[in-house]
Amino acid sequence: MSRILTVAAAQLGPIQKAEGRDIVVARMIALMDEAKAKGAELIVYPELALTTFFPRWHHEDRAEADHWFETAMPNPAVQPLFDRAREHGMGMSFGYAELTPEGRHFNTSILVDREGTIVGKYRKIHLPGHVEFDPERAHQHLEKRYFEPGDLGFPVWRMMGGLMGMMICNDRRWPESYRVMGLQGVEMVVLGFNTPSVNSQKAGEGMAQRLFHHRLSVQAGAYQNATWVVAVAKAGDEDGHHCMGGTLIVNPDGEIVAELVGEADGVIVHACDLDDTRFGKETIFDFKRHRRIEHYGPITAQVGVIEPE
Amino acid sequence: MSRILTVAAAQLGPIQKAEGRDIVVARMIALMDEAKAKGAELIVYPELALTTFFPRWHHEDRAEADHWFETAMPNPAVQPLFDRAREHGMGMSFGYAELTPEGRHFNTSILVDREGTIVGKYRKIHLPGHVEFDPERAHQHLEKRYFEPGDLGFPVWRMMGGLMGMMICNDRRWPESYRVMGLQGVEMVVLGFNTPSVNSQKAGEGMAQRLFHHRLSVQAGAYQNATWVVAVAKAGDEDGHHCMGGTLIVNPDGEIVAELVGEADGVIVHACDLDDTRFGKETIFDFKRHRRIEHYGPITAQVGVIEPE
Repeated sequence: MSRILTVAAAQLGPIQKAEGRDIVVARMIALMDEAKAKGAELIVYPELALTTFFPRWHHEDRAEADHWFETAMPNPAVQPLFDRAREHGMGMSFGYAELTPEGRHFNTSILVDREGTIVGKYRKIHLPGHVEFDPERAHQHLEKRYFEPGDLGFPVWRMMGGLMGMMICNDRRWPESYRVMGLQGVEMVVLGFNTPSVNSQKAGEGMAQRLFHHRLSVQAGAYQNATWVVAVAKAGDEDGHHCMGGTLIVNPDGEIVAELVGEADGVIVHACDLDDTRFGKETIFDFKRHRRIEHYGPITAQVGVIEPE
Repeated sequence: MSRILTVAAAQLGPIQKAEGRDIVVARMIALMDEAKAKGAELIVYPELALTTFFPRWHHEDRAEADHWFETAMPNPAVQPLFDRAREHGMGMSFGYAELTPEGRHFNTSILVDREGTIVGKYRKIHLPGHVEFDPERAHQHLEKRYFEPGDLGFPVWRMMGGLMGMMICNDRRWPESYRVMGLQGVEMVVLGFNTPSVNSQKAGEGMAQRLFHHRLSVQAGAYQNATWVVAVAKAGDEDGHHCMGGTLIVNPDGEIVAELVGEADGVIVHACDLDDTRFGKETIFDFKRHRRIEHYGPITAQVGVIEPE
């Protein structure tokens, strides 16, 4: 048996603060055309794909950051991307900053089917960083200032013949993210990220170590839930702040089957057999036979650490 | 700040079915002497350290396997090991098959302090394998036949200046195992394993891939909970059944700091700074600030997969 879904991981190089959405959308369309030419049916772009990674900029008045947010999706700036996807008959996923009619702010991603319908929305749950300006850090990472944590859980959707889930950036370091989707039978997780190349609180933690942590988390999540994972970076130097690359596609054995080299716009394409998830899900990670929830209580009963007496 | 605990991972080569506990205990004592000479304060041995990996042998009458079990700990066969540890002032951990006075069977490990007192007991929770003889498999893996799942949870104990936890073999593939201990502030997880070199249900999955899955699971668990992990193999050919090695020590960044080459008895020693767990626990994996348990519900509410409509 095989159920092939050919997916493109579409990395974006840097987006400068001064660059408008029109420039970015044109780049995304060029990547989509390239992906289509390479046989892709689904294209995945990074977190906050339409703008620079703005949470590095501190505004005393938060409303000054609102211009980075989308108040509707699609909207006129992004419509050409939706149009091209529909023309190609391709599914897609990308991240953007969402400002709701009620004035709520989320770090969001969507799943769009071949007909251009938004079938899934995810709002980032594990927001890294901090709320207030932190003079101790090498650079600011104000996601906790500009966004509230996602309120939609970790849903899984049927799309293009498979069970699809989304997460965003820091979510990938948390095994809970994969597991909640694994418990819904997820077969492909798509995720975008913007990860600074240096730890803002530990200068010695540079790009090699951060790429290692990235791969480790994604590969373990894939293996332990027997799912494909498509992880897509925004990379390179944005106004003097460098983001690592590390765009890759991981199979349900946790192995990297494709990885993009470099920090520019680029596409890697892989024919993913969704039936490759079956063996893991039916043997070593057959949850029904092996999980022992009576011993997992603290995972949902407590947030932080409670040390023994 | 630093809190050094120098630990020895003491791999055992194969133990044949015909070999008695006296032979194994003598080998364990030799490894202990070597570890002491190399400065170790704590020594960790594999799962089911005292015998061959007997769950590969099918007995129609389960009671015929009872001779592989210990009905008391310590007992006369193991007493020389306890005596030598106390003489050296060393802590230790090893696995054995436990038969309780009530007739219950567990795959167990213990944590013994410098004075020879058993301060912690763990009973393996994630039992792999199957209950009945399976003619489809290349070899039998009857842990679910000979043991019941552990009933003691994943406790963490204060010992030798640190917060210590245990898991056994297949537990290491389950992120829940590490997380329950991480939520108790664990600083060092010790674990033993006996892992066949070939997947009994997939001939193409050989030693390289199985070592990869092993390292991936252990490294991710260490990183995502900012803890040391000491993983110790029983390796080599036991009566024609080959177990992989892969004895290693992983730091709280998920990096392998020591790895034993080969499949014979051997020791690797590393000075582990328990304060190296602080940075991870206080920043990216500061659970109190970042975990969102309101979205983790399925992890403890359901055992198996529930696919969306």
